[in-house]
Parts: sequence; structure tokens; C-alpha cells
Amino acid sequence: MQPIHQKRIDEASWDVIDTAMSPKITGELLKHLRQVMKNCKYFSEPIQAYIIPSGDAHQSEYIAPCDCRREFICGFNGSAGTAIVTEQHAAMWTDGRYFLQASQQMDNNWTLMKMGLKETPSQEDWLISVLPENSKVGVDPWIIAADQWKNMSKALSSAGHSLVAVQDNMIDVVWTDRPERPSTPLRTLGLEYTGMSWQDKITTLRAKMTERKISWFVATALDEIAWLFNLRGADIEYNPVFFAYSIIGMNTIRLFVDLKRLSHPTLRDHLQLDSPSRPELSIQTFPYESVYTELQAICAALSPKDKVWICEKASCALTQVIPKSHKAPIPYTPLCLAKAVKNATEIQGMKMAHIKDAAALCEQFAWLEKEVFSRFSEKDFVGLSFPTISSVGPNGAIIHYRPLPETNRTLTTNEIYLIDSGAQYVDGTTDVTRTMHFGTPSAFEKECFTNVLKGHIAVSAAIFPNGTKGHLLDSFARAALWESGLDYLHGTGHGVGCFLNVHEGPCGISYKTFADEPLEAGMIVSDEPGYYEDGCFGIRLENVVLVVPANPKYNYRNRGSLTFEPLTLVPIQVKMMNTELLTQKERDWVNEYHRKCREVVGAELERQDKKEALEWLIRETQPVV
Amino acid sequence: MQPIHQKRIDEASWDVIDTAMSPKITGELLKHLRQVMKNCKYFSEPIQAYIIPSGDAHQSEYIAPCDCRREFICGFNGSAGTAIVTEQHAAMWTDGRYFLQASQQMDNNWTLMKMGLKETPSQEDWLISVLPENSKVGVDPWIIAADQWKNMSKALSSAGHSLVAVQDNMIDVVWTDRPERPSTPLRTLGLEYTGMSWQDKITTLRAKMTERKISWFVATALDEIAWLFNLRGADIEYNPVFFAYSIIGMNTIRLFVDLKRLSHPTLRDHLQLDSPSRPELSIQTFPYESVYTELQAICAALSPKDKVWICEKASCALTQVIPKSHKAPIPYTPLCLAKAVKNATEIQGMKMAHIKDAAALCEQFAWLEKEVFSRFSEKDFVGLSFPTISSVGPNGAIIHYRPLPETNRTLTTNEIYLIDSGAQYVDGTTDVTRTMHFGTPSAFEKECFTNVLKGHIAVSAAIFPNGTKGHLLDSFARAALWESGLDYLHGTGHGVGCFLNVHEGPCGISYKTFADEPLEAGMIVSDEPGYYEDGCFGIRLENVVLVVPANPKYNYRNRGSLTFEPLTLVPIQVKMMNTELLTQKERDWVNEYHRKCREVVGAELERQDKKEALEWLIRETQPVV
Repeated sequence: MQPIHQKRIDEASWDVIDTAMSPKITGELLKHLRQVMKNCKYFSEPIQAYIIPSGDAHQSEYIAPCDCRREFICGFNGSAGTAIVTEQHAAMWTDGRYFLQASQQMDNNWTLMKMGLKETPSQEDWLISVLPENSKVGVDPWIIAADQWKNMSKALSSAGHSLVAVQDNMIDVVWTDRPERPSTPLRTLGLEYTGMSWQDKITTLRAKMTERKISWFVATALDEIAWLFNLRGADIEYNPVFFAYSIIGMNTIRLFVDLKRLSHPTLRDHLQLDSPSRPELSIQTFPYESVYTELQAICAALSPKDKVWICEKASCALTQVIPKSHKAPIPYTPLCLAKAVKNATEIQGMKMAHIKDAAALCEQFAWLEKEVFSRFSEKDFVGLSFPTISSVGPNGAIIHYRPLPETNRTLTTNEIYLIDSGAQYVDGTTDVTRTMHFGTPSAFEKECFTNVLKGHIAVSAAIFPNGTKGHLLDSFARAALWESGLDYLHGTGHGVGCFLNVHEGPCGISYKTFADEPLEAGMIVSDEPGYYEDGCFGIRLENVVLVVPANPKYNYRNRGSLTFEPLTLVPIQVKMMNTELLTQKERDWVNEYHRKCREVVGAELERQDKKEALEWLIRETQPVV
Repeated sequence: MQPIHQKRIDEASWDVIDTAMSPKITGELLKHLRQVMKNCKYFSEPIQAYIIPSGDAHQSEYIAPCDCRREFICGFNGSAGTAIVTEQHAAMWTDGRYFLQASQQMDNNWTLMKMGLKETPSQEDWLISVLPENSKVGVDPWIIAADQWKNMSKALSSAGHSLVAVQDNMIDVVWTDRPERPSTPLRTLGLEYTGMSWQDKITTLRAKMTERKISWFVATALDEIAWLFNLRGADIEYNPVFFAYSIIGMNTIRLFVDLKRLSHPTLRDHLQLDSPSRPELSIQTFPYESVYTELQAICAALSPKDKVWICEKASCALTQVIPKSHKAPIPYTPLCLAKAVKNATEIQGMKMAHIKDAAALCEQFAWLEKEVFSRFSEKDFVGLSFPTISSVGPNGAIIHYRPLPETNRTLTTNEIYLIDSGAQYVDGTTDVTRTMHFGTPSAFEKECFTNVLKGHIAVSAAIFPNGTKGHLLDSFARAALWESGLDYLHGTGHGVGCFLNVHEGPCGISYKTFADEPLEAGMIVSDEPGYYEDGCFGIRLENVVLVVPANPKYNYRNRGSLTFEPLTLVPIQVKMMNTELLTQKERDWVNEYHRKCREVVGAELERQDKKEALEWLIRETQPVV
């Protein structure tokens, strides 16, 4: 799936998948919101501007329908965007992936702020230019991260304004039919899937805390909590997580979650709620909403030397509970780092999931005209890992396009077909994009595809030293496109969770340099360069790849080297390649990759006795010369 | 010349060029310094640790002998390093380029802290681990930059210590024979060299200030001041600059400089000191030392809305004079940016200087055994732009090696010869590294050289979009080395001034992402990958290259593309190449480069009637197949 630019962004609201690409009418809504902004019931004074970021109280990338406030107010449902409403203006900032989509989804009440263009002001500069003196700018402190609050507050203060925390979310006041917060059943994961018990994970975490002289750790990211307790939920579509917080001390574990969810005996047994093995591994459970008051109580009882770890990206509301002298903010939590480096069981699971997924895709591609998602019948299949992006011709140029009735195009033999899809299996998460043509691609289409392929191979085959950060590999994916004067406006790869979120930190491959911990063996990222010709077609080639040790000829300073091993094993359409543009090394890579697809996925298809899919696989993996 | 890792670093002390690679004996010196640290004459209370950074009050990269305090106290004379002395310990931090050299130059009183290794503590962490509770850590506020002060102070405070500004430099107290601050004659540069009068530069600067609502600008970087006033000095060896400050308001220009230097009529005329054309272009001159009190006076008279621009990297001492409400710190000054984009006159001058330099080098290489620096006789030659690095065999592996008597090796036909040298011409600055062998290189030496060459070509021939930052090109230079498990521990390129510092910001090509403004047409950087085999040899290939527009086949989103044009035109030794490892594209690049060397430098050598050099040039530029 196409990589994200920022970690703290939401994704489109999946419950409105049938919304047309026509603008939302927002005149009355904005009128109502502006009345609320003047109403001193919500804040002691009227506020002159209200910021509506993407996101939920956990800074999740994908969010539940009840948290899609930015989409509700402006109509734009892309994954990244921030809306700001003042008495006179309404503006929405988003990046290059979404310029086209946002302009189609918002009505004339809204100004589209195209991020990344020189002439586009930052949110701060724009606010300063439009606000009257001494203005109050409101924001929900649960939605805005502590570091964003700090930057925005500083910029506004320096211009004589102030950023204020409005406890009641003002969008919720005007959103009369807002959906409820989900509370789906929890699933426990045994050692055969996780490779490590939650008790051992807690012990490892506490060892890190001791090492850094930390007394408490506040966990707010949903995937970190799911990983820590070896639990999964389905509160957010595509992400197998559940709404919760956790606070871990050296002797106590507090879990904040809708208590109704903890009644099933299997679950109580997994968490040892009724008979903890050791007192320091006893979990105390609290209602989800009480995290604020519990954290206050913990902070009131701190000794002078006690330090509390909280992620810099956690909500402003929770971060501000911890007194400054006790606060130890960290860019990435130890859970985030531990989760990123997959253990042997997780890697094995990921490999298995990818083989199953490849088999399913071969079947899908072989019988594409039936439009059957054969993946659904695979063993351990749980659900999709994100909404399938499947587009024909010009729709492929909208980078995050999903089929909506009005804009659906029939698959023809004249146009490029792009499919980006992924699935959640109990043993792993997949994410793959292929681009193909069922007729005869034009020379330009083949040239672009081949340049994208060259970039894909350059990353996938790169050998690089231990400790290299992903951003240093991003240009490898672009060099061939750049040489033709082409490019794509998104990053090259994102971290991939193991039966967890399809997007995860702290590593990635992007020209942006944040969320960029050094790559190490066991990390899993996507490799997905693309090219999008507005109004004509979109091309993207994506594999999920595992960081593995490499053994080049020499070993400079004993640092060791890394490279990638593709986990995704789905043929890349040879028909789309202009093989004359490939070097011998690149042709060798394609042939070796296809040999592995045929060998590994072929065996799986034989086992499943899927003859047509196997024939398709064999045809599509003929060597190129 | 080899790129710098940090802007704010000094270079070795050039007056002690005959110092051997044997450790400095520092026992007595440290004893004396520790007495001074306890003496309340210098600070109201005893201090428990004293930080001695590299650098001068202008955060210059190269520094005058009087400012080489870190070298004086510990003996290590590399360009980057920070020493810290406590009551019990003495430690010195430096990076991978200098591990070998530092360990040879420091005695057992000192602990070498190898930066970049996982086990090496940061300065802050180390201080916190060794200091008694409530310690005072002293530093000279003129030497430490404001941003560094802030970070260090924050880290120390959070552990119960405090960072204190000690006005008298404590090294100067123990340095009895410290040299005087230089005050060399100033040289004026006319429009034929600068392309723009200082008056027009001031007017452009003021237009930027008006645009950003800034009332005052404090210039502290020596090369920015030299560029602004179209003046050059020779206060710091290799850098044609002079010690000065300048404060520019909307109607006034204050220049702080040793007033004795302003007596020459040509200079007074150039600066219009006696008959300014317009009142707002009248320069008021002040003694160098009075910048502190003058800035205080200016700040005392500020209106509430007045803002003062000062670089974030300026000294802590000067930055703290400006009240917080008026301070507008900037990562790069407008002068730094304006200076980086060369105008047509400057580019023409740089091209000319490089042709002359190439002719001189051809002569030098042709008659290497005579060890004549024929460059000295070239037209407009001013001096070297940095100390020539010329090394044989294992000495090449010390990245910043300069020939010192004890370690000098005779040039033989058995070893690799590396020469990195540059010159200042009135029309431009050069910097070139070539690596050659006068006998028969080994297969391994050729393999390494060829991988370095592949990296050099990958950067030089890269086409990339407008707006790309240099760090995104760094990995191109390394990919071939990485593929063999090799690497080099320095950046790939630095900005190059035009008859100014051979190292300048704000652009560069490095895996580090600071000091990294987007590349744009007219910027000039070096392209210098290398490989260093400890104890055996060093390889580096360096050209100075100009950023120029490129015209690839397509033009995505109308952004335009850039590439590099080599300004350096010195043959690359074919004998060192394993041409079988080169692709056809790389062979074409080498042949086209050599064709240009032959055509352009050949014409110059013919003009100068240098027959032997011309023969050498023709022989060294035969096409490779």
C-alpha cells in the first residue's frame, strides 16, 4: 500500500465507501460551527479559529468513523489533512497525493492549501495573516500531539495570539449523528504466533526502564498495546487493534479498556486476571475513560527522582498531566522499537502469510474477469489490511483512489490496471501492488513502468551498511525516473506490522527524514515506487521486503551489511516491461524473483490443486532475455 | 578537499605544521587548568567541568592560531573535536575520520571518545555520569553557538547541574604564549569579479528584511561579511576573510573591524567611507571589540515590534544580548543563501579558475618528480585554499593527513599516491583530489578505485528534480562501495565559495541532513567519494561541480530538473580503473570527461606553450574501451 507521509494521520472514513466524488455541501455546517466557537459554554471566551486535525486520541493513522471529524466538517476523506475554520475563512491543508481528490470533495466554502508548493503558507503563517490581533485559536487537546501543540503554540504566541485547549470537541457538538466508539471482541494470540509471551515483553520493557532509570511508562499507541499484551481487536477497520491505554510501573500494570470486553474466560486466562502468576505481573483493569484521572493520581504520588516515559507524539492532554520535572518524552517508545524488529516466529508467520497471499493473488489474476477475491478462502485469513485500491486508466492517477460507484470504470483491454491490496492473516500482514495491461500497452506506458521497476529493483537489491536510515535509500527508487524527468509524490516505503497495522513506525524509506530509525535485520518495510500521469494512468510496483544480513565481498570496519529479501511473491507483468531499458543485472533480478515465485507459490497452488492459477503463474514467470 | 561534517568546526593549527605525530604531554597543563577552574576570580564559584569546543567567536570552520584552544589543551589538531576537563577526567570527542590521528596526538591523560560508535556516550551523558551532584559546567559563551548552549544547558539542568558562561576564557589564562589575533591588509574586489556591488547587496538584503518585517540583521560569519562588502582579507590561513562583525538596519550600516585596517584610500573609496552616495548606504565603522556594547545600545532603543535577525549558529554571547521578544533566530542568514547561488560573473570566474588550476595540475603531474607547485605561477593565483593533502601508501588512510617530517614517505612506484589540493584565485576557488599509482596497482586497489569512481560518476551524472536536498544524493556515491561491503566515513560533498572559503553552507551532499538547503542552479559543491584501507592506502576522487539545469525527456509537474557540470578538469588515472567493472554508460562518462579536459585544458597548455604537460594530458585522456 502506498506509504504514508506522516505517522499521525487518519485514513478515509470507511463507512462512507459509497460517497461519490462530488463535493460535500458545508455552508450550514460551518455556520453552526462558527456559532459554537462564539459560545462561552465551551470555552471561557469566544475563539476566533478552530483547528480540526486528522486523528484520534491515540494518534492512530487509520481512525474509527467516530473520529473522522476533519472529513465530517469539510468532506475530504483522504488520509492526511488539517482543516482550520475562522470567522471568515475555512481552509484545508493536504499534500500532493490528494490535490485532485480534495478539490473534488470540498465545496467553495473551503480553500485547498496545497502543501509542498512554495506559494502555500504554513498553517501558522496563514493564521497569523488572517486573524485579528490577540486571537484565541482552539484545538482539542486529545487529538493534537504534544509536539505539534508546542510548535503551533509557540508560533501563535510570537505573533500575539494564543492556542487554547477546548475540552469539548466542537465538531462533536455540531455532529448530531456521530457514530459510537467501537468495542469489538478481543482475540488472544498464543506463543505460536507471537514468539514471546506478554509477561516476557513486560519484563523486557521493565529492564529497559531500569537501565534508563524510568519509573513509569504510559502506552498510548493502539498497535503497541495490542503487541504488548498479545491481543487483537477490530475497533478500527483494517487495523487489528482495540481502544485502550496502559500504564506500566516497576510492580504494577494498569490496562484501561472498556471493561465489558474482559468477560470471556479465554481472555481472562490469557491475561491471568483471576490468578496472576507473580504479583508484579498482575494486571489491574480500569475503564478506558479513567486513564486521565489514574495518571493524575500516579503523578501526585511520584518521588522527586521518578521519571515517566511518554511518547512525544502522545496527546497533548495526557502529556500535560505529567509534571515537567518528571516527564521524560521520547521520540519512539521502547515498544515501538521492539515491535519493529520481528522475532523468528513473527518472520516465519510473515513468510507464510505472504505465500498464501501470493497464491490467492495468482488465482485472482488468473480469473480476473470473475472479480472474485479468492484470498477470502485462504487459511488464517482475517480480513483486509486496508481498503483495496483497484483502478483502471485515469483513476490510477489519483494516488489513493478506491472504486466508488460514480467513477468506476469497466476493465478494458485498452487501459492500465493498478491493484493495491493487502490482507490480515493470523500469522502476518500483506500489502502488494501490481500494475498490468490486458491488451497492448503504449511505448510511453512501458517506458514509465520500466523506470518504476528499475527503481523497485534498485531498492530491493541494494546492499547497505548496518545503521543506515531508510531515507538514504529513497533516491535509489527515483534515480531512473529522475533521469527521464519523472518522479512520484510519495515516499518509497513504510514499516509493516506483523498481523498488526499495515503502516507502522519507526522505520521507512522516504525523502522525509523523520520517523526514520536505522534499518536493522528483522525490520519489514514496503518497496513501492510509482508513476502517475494525471488523467491517464497510474503505475505502482510494491513488494513487502524483509531486512536481512548481506554478505558482500568485504566487511568495512566490521560493521556488517544489510539488504532486502522480498516477502511478496507475485509475478511482475513482463508485458509491461521494455526489457531493452533493463541492464543485465536488472534482468537477472527479475528472473530470479520470478523463479522464486514459481517455486514457492507454485508448490502452494499445487497443494491447493488450483490448476488454472498455476498455469497463469508459470506463464507469467517465463524468464526475460 | 574532504567534506566537513559540521559547519562549526575549526581546522588544525597551521603554524605547527612541523609537529610530529607524537602525543603532546599535557599533565602540567591540566593541573594548571584545574587550579584555574577552582579560582573564584574567573567565576563566582569553583567549576567542576570546563568544555573546550573547537571554534572561534564567528563559528568559523578554519580558525586562526590564537583560537586553536582545543588543540593547545589536548594536542589533537584535527578539524573536529571537543575537549572536556573535569577535576578527575579529561576526554575528547571526535569522529571516524580522526580516530587514528587523535589516538596518536593525545597522551594518556586523555580519553578518546569515538563519536558514531554505539558504546560512546554523548558529552551530556558522560558529564552526568562523572559529575558530583549540583555541579557547575563552564564554557566560553563566545565560542559556543546559541543552539549548542541551549541543548547542553537543558540536558545538564535536567540532571541537577548547570551550564555557566565564564567570560574569561580559561584556556587563555593557562596559554602563556598565545599568538595575537591577525589583522592582515584588506583587498577590494571590483564588479568584474563580484558581479554585484556591495551597495546592491545591502539593498537586496534590506528588501528581504522588509518582506519579513525585520528591523535589524546581525552578521557574524566572516565569509558572509567578506562577501557582502566585496572585501577579502587573509586573517585565517586558506580562507580569504577578515575578523569583523556587521549590523545592518534599514537606514544604517555598522561595520566592526580593527580600525587601523581602514586607512588605505582605495579601501575608503570602495566603502565610500568619506563620501557616501546616499545616507542609507553610509557605513559607520567601529572597533571590532565594540560589537557587544553597540548591539546592547541598539537593543535598548528597539520599538516593541522591532525584530532582529541573527543566525542560530551565532555565538551564545551575542545572541543573548537580544531580548527574547525581539529575537528572530534563523538557521541560515539571507547572506548565506544569496552567496550560495553564484551569479553569472562568479560562475565565469570559477570556470576560469578551474581551467587555470587544471593546467597547473597537469604540469605538476607531468613533472611530479620535480615536486614543483607550478600552480604558483598561474595568473590571478592568490594562495592555497587549504593545506595540500598529499600522501603515499598507508598515510592516505589517515583521512586528513598532511605531510609532517616524521611520517613523510618517499614517493615510490609501489604505492598509491593521493593528492588533495586547492587554490585561491582572484576569480575563483578550486579543490581537487586525484589518486594515482606510478607503478602497477594491485587488483584490490583497482577494484576499490573503480568503486569510488562509480560513486563519483553516479553523483556527477545524476539528474534530479529542482528542490532536491543534497543528502538525497549521498547514497548514489556509496552504492557501488556498499555492494562490495565497503564505505567511507565522511560526507560526499561540501559547498564551495567563489574566492571565498573552500567549505561553505548551506548546501552539501552528506548522509547528515542538517546544513542542507535544496540544491539549485548556480550552487557549487564538491563530489568526493573515497575509500580508505587502514594501514595500506587511501583513495579519493574529487571534482568541484556546478549545479546546472538538466533537460531530460519529460518534465514532471513542470518542476524542472538539475544535474552537475564538472568545473574541475583534471584527468582521472585510467591505470587505476578496472574498466570491466564499469558499465557502458560509465565508460562513456569517463571518455566525455577526458575529451573535455583535453579540449579545454589542452588549449590553455598550448597557449602557455607547456609541451610536456600537454603530452601528459593527451596520454592520460585516451578513451577507455
